[in-house]
Amino acid sequence: VTTWVPVPAGSDFPVENLPFGIVRPAADAPPRLALRIGDHVVDLAELAGVGMLDVPAGRMTAPSLNALAADGVGPAARIRAQVAELLTSTPDARIEAALRPIDRVQCELPVRPGDYVDHYSSLEHATNLGRLLRPGGEPLLPNWRRLPVGYHGRCGSIVVSGTDVARPDGLLPCESGEPALGPSRALDLELEVGFVVGRAGARLAPDDADEHVFGAVLLNDWSARDIQAYEYQPLGPNLGKSFATTVSPWVVTLDALRPYLVPPPPQDPEPDPYLRAERPWALDLQLEIWLNGERVSATNFRTMYWTFAQQLAHMTVNGAVARPGDLIGSGTVSGPARAERGSLIELTWQGADPLTLADGSHRAFLLDGDTVALHGWCGGAPPRPRIGFGAAVGTIVPAIPRARPIHDR
Amino acid sequence: VTTWVPVPAGSDFPVENLPFGIVRPAADAPPRLALRIGDHVVDLAELAGVGMLDVPAGRMTAPSLNALAADGVGPAARIRAQVAELLTSTPDARIEAALRPIDRVQCELPVRPGDYVDHYSSLEHATNLGRLLRPGGEPLLPNWRRLPVGYHGRCGSIVVSGTDVARPDGLLPCESGEPALGPSRALDLELEVGFVVGRAGARLAPDDADEHVFGAVLLNDWSARDIQAYEYQPLGPNLGKSFATTVSPWVVTLDALRPYLVPPPPQDPEPDPYLRAERPWALDLQLEIWLNGERVSATNFRTMYWTFAQQLAHMTVNGAVARPGDLIGSGTVSGPARAERGSLIELTWQGADPLTLADGSHRAFLLDGDTVALHGWCGGAPPRPRIGFGAAVGTIVPAIPRARPIHDR
Repeated sequence: VTTWVPVPAGSDFPVENLPFGIVRPAADAPPRLALRIGDHVVDLAELAGVGMLDVPAGRMTAPSLNALAADGVGPAARIRAQVAELLTSTPDARIEAALRPIDRVQCELPVRPGDYVDHYSSLEHATNLGRLLRPGGEPLLPNWRRLPVGYHGRCGSIVVSGTDVARPDGLLPCESGEPALGPSRALDLELEVGFVVGRAGARLAPDDADEHVFGAVLLNDWSARDIQAYEYQPLGPNLGKSFATTVSPWVVTLDALRPYLVPPPPQDPEPDPYLRAERPWALDLQLEIWLNGERVSATNFRTMYWTFAQQLAHMTVNGAVARPGDLIGSGTVSGPARAERGSLIELTWQGADPLTLADGSHRAFLLDGDTVALHGWCGGAPPRPRIGFGAAVGTIVPAIPRARPIHDR
Repeated sequence: VTTWVPVPAGSDFPVENLPFGIVRPAADAPPRLALRIGDHVVDLAELAGVGMLDVPAGRMTAPSLNALAADGVGPAARIRAQVAELLTSTPDARIEAALRPIDRVQCELPVRPGDYVDHYSSLEHATNLGRLLRPGGEPLLPNWRRLPVGYHGRCGSIVVSGTDVARPDGLLPCESGEPALGPSRALDLELEVGFVVGRAGARLAPDDADEHVFGAVLLNDWSARDIQAYEYQPLGPNLGKSFATTVSPWVVTLDALRPYLVPPPPQDPEPDPYLRAERPWALDLQLEIWLNGERVSATNFRTMYWTFAQQLAHMTVNGAVARPGDLIGSGTVSGPARAERGSLIELTWQGADPLTLADGSHRAFLLDGDTVALHGWCGGAPPRPRIGFGAAVGTIVPAIPRARPIHDR
């Protein structure tokens, strides 16, 4: 499919993709919905305002995609189809006026999750973490193969790609015995995919993902391993992860991803009926971690043990409602080889085997100034279009000094 | 202080209290802010509309208290002071027109939390649960006395008092070995107090609670112990708690509670400086659990080991922003005596020692049809006014049949 908009070779955003995001053309302009094409965005509020889109312009001026997601798959599919038609027909000045270069807009957080549930669904990641955090024990607990283990993360700390990440303070164990507050010395990344809930629903079956998942983003579940290790028993991760979660700005629709859905790995034992699907819900999605411009890991999302469709079913089996804009984190994506691991704690085996970067420096965990970029795409080998995600980028900045002297009585 | 509005003796809501809530005068009327007085509510949208309140009427028509909370303590204090003045001066037809009997309005969820962090801050509760869930081990883990252990709960499942609670389904361990989906057989309640964040803030000190806590509600953290026990390692509670959390409709302001702030129990070891306060942040708040009209537990909130002010400081020490309307759950409140325990798993020692109710029936856990009401109040012995919370009530209804046959291949 060809469009009159210039799309660079190898772009994540050909006309077959058209992911949704929220942009501002200027810092003081109201946020509006947009579709990404090549190095441009289509300003949907502008397009609707000149009558080129069959939706009220007011619906396209919003601080998030939540309301669009709430409407289910139909309205979003119609918008993408209309815009694809416009971009592949004769150019029109009114459409050109709604096209804005990507470097002239500010990308905002695309959704405002009311709840964010993160998971632990890669067999290799869970096994690696079990070995590192509970040495000597069985790495996988008995429930792991029975249900997609998950927990609720902090919605208020979700930030869009490009936002700096301040090194978090936390209570750290200390060799002298007394734990003390200090900046994390084991700041890590986690390579994940986040799925955005569309139409609301409870007690969903995995195959309901078709109607209730709006799309997907890349997600970096930044983790302070030292804070986490000290705090996490018995109620799970809290401060070790609640300081920041970075997502990519473009929600790639399930419609665009559908050609890349593939059968998941076999599950043994077979899960309870409520977790069984008729259709394939693994995703053939290539993923990469780049650290300061250097690729340090590459893996494929199709290796995940639990699918996002199973996570959706599990999350709602107790009657909990998945609401539009809610975020489902896949859990860290790690493949079996060392170079496929999705976090530094795994890549460096908790610092025992540091990474050596091209500049000769070593990394056990992240240093101030380090920039992490996650990339991901489906397809790309002709004739299959590349359906890419762009990047989820964050740079570590030093811990912020406390605003007041700490009271010490 | 006397008001011309009739306030029944022993009411939770004398004119000194005036807690905020959200009500609808009719099912199709827009929600608006209200203050509670005796068995009436003061409709603040109505009052502002006739110019009796020094705020724009539009600000008093809102689906939640979040925006008011965001403004910090000042604006809410001025509204309460103005209404108190009106209710203790000469009656005026315009004020009487804004008074609505409580049984003629629908109470709504008072806040829409963007994040809900629940804790585990009663020494007795944590010890009891440690004994029950990890028999043979140390009941308290090493971190417990160093920081207020907490985790994120599900915002979308928070409901207002009076909402029925459907028994949740979940994957249950089975004696024959294979866990299987089924309705929980160990449905429990948890007696808690919920604190509502006011003005946003990060890296707060405990004494900042003064400026950043808007008020408090009663909170029932319904828990399915069998689902929880199977799922909770290593990432904490999820489906066992994410099906429902009931809160009382009236947010009692920190201003009204201030006379009842008292020194907390001593902490040993002394916590890290970031968790130390100059001022007392325990609350002399009497709490009760009623089951089917019968009191089954009574305790006092002042016994909690960690205060809400310390929880606020801990929650934000890593840079996470506490946002207006966020909810901080105290954790289950259990006193040292059996009759002071805040959950059935503790009261019945996991069913080993069931409760016998007045009708001769026994309870290990909750049965369908059971109604649980939490009550709480400060003061009440003259001359100290009773600053009450009303009730957080919920009735258990049977598990909802799944809408479709479960796929069984």
